[in-house]
Amino acid sequence: MSERIEAVYHIRSDAASIEARACSVAVEQSVEMPVAAIGDRFVLDEILGEVRSIRDLGDGLFETRIGLAVETVGAEAGQLMNMLFGNVSLQSDVRLVDAHLPPSLLHAFGGPSLGVEGWMSRLTGARRPLTMSNLKPQGLPPEGLADLAGRLALGGLDLIKDDHGLAQQPYASFAARVPAVAAAIRRASDKTGVRTRYLPNITGSLDDLRRQLDLARSLGLDGVLILPMVVGLPSFQRLRRDYPDVAFMAHPALAGSLRIALPLLVGRIFRLLGADAVVFPGYGGRFGTSRQDCRTLVDNARVPWGGLKATLPFPAGGMTLERVRELKEFYGPDSGLFLGGSLLATTDRLTKQTAVFVQAVAGP
Amino acid sequence: MSERIEAVYHIRSDAASIEARACSVAVEQSVEMPVAAIGDRFVLDEILGEVRSIRDLGDGLFETRIGLAVETVGAEAGQLMNMLFGNVSLQSDVRLVDAHLPPSLLHAFGGPSLGVEGWMSRLTGARRPLTMSNLKPQGLPPEGLADLAGRLALGGLDLIKDDHGLAQQPYASFAARVPAVAAAIRRASDKTGVRTRYLPNITGSLDDLRRQLDLARSLGLDGVLILPMVVGLPSFQRLRRDYPDVAFMAHPALAGSLRIALPLLVGRIFRLLGADAVVFPGYGGRFGTSRQDCRTLVDNARVPWGGLKATLPFPAGGMTLERVRELKEFYGPDSGLFLGGSLLATTDRLTKQTAVFVQAVAGP
Repeated sequence: MSERIEAVYHIRSDAASIEARACSVAVEQSVEMPVAAIGDRFVLDEILGEVRSIRDLGDGLFETRIGLAVETVGAEAGQLMNMLFGNVSLQSDVRLVDAHLPPSLLHAFGGPSLGVEGWMSRLTGARRPLTMSNLKPQGLPPEGLADLAGRLALGGLDLIKDDHGLAQQPYASFAARVPAVAAAIRRASDKTGVRTRYLPNITGSLDDLRRQLDLARSLGLDGVLILPMVVGLPSFQRLRRDYPDVAFMAHPALAGSLRIALPLLVGRIFRLLGADAVVFPGYGGRFGTSRQDCRTLVDNARVPWGGLKATLPFPAGGMTLERVRELKEFYGPDSGLFLGGSLLATTDRLTKQTAVFVQAVAGP
Repeated sequence: MSERIEAVYHIRSDAASIEARACSVAVEQSVEMPVAAIGDRFVLDEILGEVRSIRDLGDGLFETRIGLAVETVGAEAGQLMNMLFGNVSLQSDVRLVDAHLPPSLLHAFGGPSLGVEGWMSRLTGARRPLTMSNLKPQGLPPEGLADLAGRLALGGLDLIKDDHGLAQQPYASFAARVPAVAAAIRRASDKTGVRTRYLPNITGSLDDLRRQLDLARSLGLDGVLILPMVVGLPSFQRLRRDYPDVAFMAHPALAGSLRIALPLLVGRIFRLLGADAVVFPGYGGRFGTSRQDCRTLVDNARVPWGGLKATLPFPAGGMTLERVRELKEFYGPDSGLFLGGSLLATTDRLTKQTAVFVQAVAGP
């Protein structure tokens, strides 16, 4: 039999029905038709999904592992998601919790281009978490965003990203805001001696994304923020291949709507498709993520995985200065610490507080 | 105040906390930072989301209507979804159930190019549901798919679409299977006198999608299947604009069922972005959709809506020949009836059973 992807689902069922239900998921996610009506030997032997195991997790929940033929994916990002969860995403008793991919598929997708080491060495060279904040609220004009960026950069941050809500709005289009922000950060960097990187958010169709990336590079920027679930995974995959020297930070907006476990989607699949870094809702913030899910997510992002480079995890969504020591301990040096709203809330003490954050991360 | 989108969420909460929770959703989906730290008047007046109403639905569930500034969307499909559900999709107590868009935004997105009337008149001209089946299982070689297509077309169907699992697999690539299938259907049409249309599934990045669309058109095909959530909404939006004479049928793979209501996503948003037809899981099938959700979905797809053309609904996922009369009554003449697996299961009586289906739909 050919190589298989192993998709792991949690299925709600009673014990008497789980075997039939698991089989129906395997059929739905592969041939999607009555098996008895299939005459083709290749389809039956190689393409039909197979239930590999069923484990009772208690309380009417079963972990089901299903083998899916690697040929059905054809190394295309959208089709990978379609095979893992296309139709059963519409069935409310099923949740996709993990997926194990064979080496051939890891190789075909390829993962990050820079990865943790490549990006870290381009940035600080130091073995400590990166420091980041972001530009918001949306609605500010380019000069407002540039002013904010300058004040943040004077605090000595490694990274400043656009908020994921900054797109192509008429009051602050990409072409208007990105040069203004980049210039403000450059001026601040000249004073601090820290080369703070700006990651603008690229949005829209593949045509738009390429135009924005080209503009960003012409300004000397070497990284961007991207929302894979919003722009579409195939666009992300395409850009990763076309721009190998650009660092891509992936943001999970819209990721939760699908009932796919975040450690899989953000930790594994975003890495597979080439995210050098990922932002995700950290435990203890306002998204209710558990410590265990965070642990699994960062493990997925960083463990050795078929030769793929590692992805740098940035917990977000309500992190504070008071938690820096705890976060450093939990996430370790190969990570990024991201203060957004809690820094911006300090308003006129912004540069000072940013510097305190940077020192806290650099310290012991 | 500027025009607003009204997003409707169902939020799980206790009565004492719902007001604060609704406010936090309005903040999360707009400025995403502490409101007290915002000094800009324009942002506070025009961009900050506003809670418009909260209604107790009982059992700890509240319907919350939130006004979001239309300028934040910039008429881009991805950013529309990002504003409606980007970050709160990651919060498990919130579900997006509906959205009301102002006329300016309807006009900017534009909706279907052909719509129900345009497409129906191109196809049959008759006032009855369209008939459709599909090609599967994936894994068949191009000749196998072409053979199947020919036998289905001999039954006199209006439409034959690819299964949504047919992509760029090595054993049946688009360039290999689509000409073979199109030729088989053309031969059958010459015999039946019915010009059966073939809708191939286009997949991958925008570059891939364009290449496939161009090939399809060079073969004389005038419609395609597309999976907006798999290829990404921005790609769908771009293609709709670039190919105004092509009929687009949208499939809900990866659309999820729990967190965004299907009547909104498939009935309203796919229509907004230009689907001439939509496939969706019908009640009484294997996806557990309720009759009420089906009713709301087809209403959303077909009601007068700011000058946008209507979208043709095709219930799917376990429809059978025995249900044709019931389905005709429920969905009315401006719809499509789609038998997939239940036709294919008839194997050697396939053409005959297809003809029975076609006659049943044409009959009283």
